[in-house]
Amino acid sequence: MADIQNVLARADANLPSSLEKLFELVRIKSISTDPAYKDECRRAADYLVGKLTELGFDASVRNTPGHPMVVAHMAGETADSPHVLFYGHYDVQPVDPLELWTTDPFEPSIKDDENGRKIITGRGTSDDKGQLLTFVEAVRAYKETRGSVPVRITILFEGEEESGSPSLKPFLEANKAELTADFALVCDTSMWDAETPAISAGLRGLVGEEIVVKAANRDLHSGYYGGAAANPIHILTEIIAGLHDATGAVTLPGFYEGVEETPADIKAQWDELARNSEDLLKPIGLSIPSGEKGRSLLELTWARPTAEVNGITGGYTGGGFKTVIAAQASAKISFRLVGHQDPAKVRESFRAYVSSKIPADCSVEFHEHGASPAIHLPYDSPLLNKAKDALSQEWPKPAVMIGMGGSIPIVGDFQKMLGMQSLLAGFALADDRIHSPNEKYNLESYHKGIRSWIRIMDALTR
Amino acid sequence: MADIQNVLARADANLPSSLEKLFELVRIKSISTDPAYKDECRRAADYLVGKLTELGFDASVRNTPGHPMVVAHMAGETADSPHVLFYGHYDVQPVDPLELWTTDPFEPSIKDDENGRKIITGRGTSDDKGQLLTFVEAVRAYKETRGSVPVRITILFEGEEESGSPSLKPFLEANKAELTADFALVCDTSMWDAETPAISAGLRGLVGEEIVVKAANRDLHSGYYGGAAANPIHILTEIIAGLHDATGAVTLPGFYEGVEETPADIKAQWDELARNSEDLLKPIGLSIPSGEKGRSLLELTWARPTAEVNGITGGYTGGGFKTVIAAQASAKISFRLVGHQDPAKVRESFRAYVSSKIPADCSVEFHEHGASPAIHLPYDSPLLNKAKDALSQEWPKPAVMIGMGGSIPIVGDFQKMLGMQSLLAGFALADDRIHSPNEKYNLESYHKGIRSWIRIMDALTR
Repeated sequence: MADIQNVLARADANLPSSLEKLFELVRIKSISTDPAYKDECRRAADYLVGKLTELGFDASVRNTPGHPMVVAHMAGETADSPHVLFYGHYDVQPVDPLELWTTDPFEPSIKDDENGRKIITGRGTSDDKGQLLTFVEAVRAYKETRGSVPVRITILFEGEEESGSPSLKPFLEANKAELTADFALVCDTSMWDAETPAISAGLRGLVGEEIVVKAANRDLHSGYYGGAAANPIHILTEIIAGLHDATGAVTLPGFYEGVEETPADIKAQWDELARNSEDLLKPIGLSIPSGEKGRSLLELTWARPTAEVNGITGGYTGGGFKTVIAAQASAKISFRLVGHQDPAKVRESFRAYVSSKIPADCSVEFHEHGASPAIHLPYDSPLLNKAKDALSQEWPKPAVMIGMGGSIPIVGDFQKMLGMQSLLAGFALADDRIHSPNEKYNLESYHKGIRSWIRIMDALTR
Repeated sequence: MADIQNVLARADANLPSSLEKLFELVRIKSISTDPAYKDECRRAADYLVGKLTELGFDASVRNTPGHPMVVAHMAGETADSPHVLFYGHYDVQPVDPLELWTTDPFEPSIKDDENGRKIITGRGTSDDKGQLLTFVEAVRAYKETRGSVPVRITILFEGEEESGSPSLKPFLEANKAELTADFALVCDTSMWDAETPAISAGLRGLVGEEIVVKAANRDLHSGYYGGAAANPIHILTEIIAGLHDATGAVTLPGFYEGVEETPADIKAQWDELARNSEDLLKPIGLSIPSGEKGRSLLELTWARPTAEVNGITGGYTGGGFKTVIAAQASAKISFRLVGHQDPAKVRESFRAYVSSKIPADCSVEFHEHGASPAIHLPYDSPLLNKAKDALSQEWPKPAVMIGMGGSIPIVGDFQKMLGMQSLLAGFALADDRIHSPNEKYNLESYHKGIRSWIRIMDALTR
C-alpha cells in the first residue's frame, strides 16, 4: 500500500487546471426542468465523457427518453480492489429570478466573500457540478502519479436530478449488472460547517404534488360576480392554511404513521452541534424556528416530516391591479418524509383532504411530481467509519454523522434496485445558495474535496 | 319639439359606418395599466378628438401626468337646453391570458354567437369603447338630420379607468367650471338581460390593496430549511383564509359599519328579477352562490360588501417542480363596499389584521391601489324616470332599476367634486366577458344603444 502524499501534492499542483474544468462545465446551461435547454444538457454529458475518456475511463453518453446519462468504468489496482459506483448529476436548477444574481450564473468567477474566503460563483458550482468534479480530479491525481486508482470505479452522472429523475429507475433496471458495485459514493451533500466534514446517515424522502383548483369557466369581473361566484384562490388558500395546526403539525390523517422518534443520544449530539437555533437561522435573515413546536431546529430539518408550498399562482399577478376573479388557481406542494412514511399513502391522504375541500360546483386536478421514501443508513457501518476517519484527517475538525433534510431519491433506488448501500459525503456548505440566486462553492470545498476523495479511496482498500 | 323618427332612421342607415368607427377604435391597443402601451392610449385619444371634431364638437386632447383626457363641447338647440356631461373611457384591460382568445383581441370581427345573435368581438368592444361610441353616434344622427342636438353636451373621455383613474380627481378639480353640467350621463354599465334595459341606482365602492409577505432574505432549498424556516406562502394563505368566517362573512373588525339592509320591497323586486340563482351562475359554469349565506345572489352582488383575492403569487410557478421555500409571496386583494362603509377605515382594519398575522422575524409591505366609497342615487329622481321611460320605448321589455356590483369611482367624484348626479345607463350584457378573454359586445347593444341615446336626449328636453 503506497503512501498518498505524492497523490495529494499532485492534486494541489493541479488546482488551476481543475478549476478551469469546473468553469467550462458551469458555462454549459444544463437546466433540466426547462425543455429550452435540452441541447445544453447533452453538451454537458458530452463534455464529461470527453474528460473521463482523457483520464483513461471507458466512458460513454447513454441515451434515455429524457436527458442522457454518463457511464464510465476504470479497473482498480488489483483484481480484488473494492468496486465503487460514484454518482453525481450534471443538471442544474433554473436561475430565476435572474435579476437577483450579482454575477452571470453561467459565467463562473472566483471572488472573495465577506469573510475573505475564496468562492467560485455560478449556477451548479455547488449543486452538483463542483461536487462531482472533486471525484474526477481525485482520479486524475492518482492516474498522473501512479498510473492507476486503488479502487475499481464505475461512474454514473445523471442529467435529470433537478427534475425528478424520470429516466433513472428504468436505466438502473436495464443496466443492473453494469452499475452494481460493492457500494455507492454519492457526492451531493453538505459539510456541517466550513471546518467540519459530515457524512449523512439519513435522508428525507419526498412527495411532490401540484393541484389546480378550478371554479368558473372563465375569469370573471370581481364587481359583477364578487360575493356570488366561487373564488378558486380562496378555496386554495383554505386548503393550504388547513394543512398545519396551531402546533405546526401536519393535519393530514395518517401523516405521522411510520415516523419514529430520534433516539435521545442522537438528539443530544445534535443539540451539541447546534446550541443556538438563532445562529442557524441568522444567515437567512430569520430567528424563529417555524415548524412543529418543542423540537430543535436540527430535529425539524433532519428527522421530522414537513408539508411545504413551493409555489402558488392565480389571478392577475402583473403590475398594477386587475379586479378579476380567476377561473383557476394552483399550487406546488411537497412533503418531506422520514422513517417509514409511505409516499403513496401520504399522496392519497393529501388528495382525499383536498378533494373534501372542493365545493360541489368546482373541481380540482392533481399532478404528480415524484415520490421517494426516506432512507436511513446504520450508524455503525464499517464503510461509514472508514470514510469518517479519512475525512477527519483532511479537515480541521473531525467528521460528524448527521441527518439530511433534502431528498436524494437515488440512494433509495440504489438500495432497492441494486442492493447497494450509499456513502453520502459532500463538501457543499449551508450558505452555498443552491437552488437560489448567487449559488457558490467555496474554493476550499473544491480543493479539499478533491483531497478528501484521494484519502477515502485509499482508506477503502485498508 | 320635433319628431325623432327621422333621427332614429338615420342611426339605422349609419350602422355600417358606426361599426367601422368602433373597429378602428378597438384596433388601438389602449391598455392603460401597462406602460408599454402609453403611445397607444394617446392614439386612442387623438382618434376620438378627430371624430368629435368632424361632428362639430369643439374637442381637444388634454394632457395629464398619466394618459390624456378627451374633452369636447357642443351647444344645445336653445339657450336653455339641459346641459349634460357624457362620460366614457377609451382605455381597456390587459388581454392575458392571450392563448384563451379565439380571435385577435385587437382585430375586431362580427360573428354569430351560439344563439345566432350577432356579436362584435375584441378587447374594449363592451368595456367601454362600444358603449362610449353609442353616444357619439347618437349625436351624429341628430347632426346629420337636424344640424343640431337637443341638449347642450360636454364630453369627457378618460384613459385611466382600468388603472384606478389617478389623474381624474386633479383634472376635475382643475377644470370644475368647464366640466360641471346639470347632470352626468355615464355609459359603462349593463342591461338586466338582452331584452331589458337597466338604470343602475347603486354602485359598490372599492378598496384595492397589495400585500407582500417577506420571510428569509433569499429563496431557500426546502430540503435544508423545510420545517425550520418561515414559508411566506403559508403565512399569506393563513391571512387570506382568515378573511372570511364559516358563514361567508368578512371577519375584519368594523368591516360592516355603514352597511345598511336593503328595504324589503326592493329585495322583493330583485327576487322577481332572478327567481333562480342557478340561472345566473350557469353561464359561468357554477351553481352555488359562494358569499354570505342566507342572501340572494342579486343582494350579494348589488348590496353586500366583499373581500376578494384578485391575484396571488409566490415561489416557483413555472413548468415542472422546484423544491424551494420562497423569500416572499404577494396577493392583490380588493374590497367591494356598499352603503356608508368608509374606504379608509376598511383599509386600516385590513392592514391591522394582516400585521397581526406576521411572525416577529418576517415582515409585510402594503401597496395601495385606489379607494372609492359606494354610491346610491334616489329611486324617485325625475332624471332617472325620464330615462327609464325613453329606454322602455326602445327595448322589448320595460327598463328596470337595479344595483351594480362594480365600482365606477367617477360617479362619486362627480357627486362630491362637481355637485352633479349621474345617470348610469349602458348596454353591456353579463356575458360580455369584460376583463376576460373573448370580450364581445352584441351588435344589438350597439345599434339599439345608439337609438336609446337619441330617445334619452329627446326625453331630457321634455
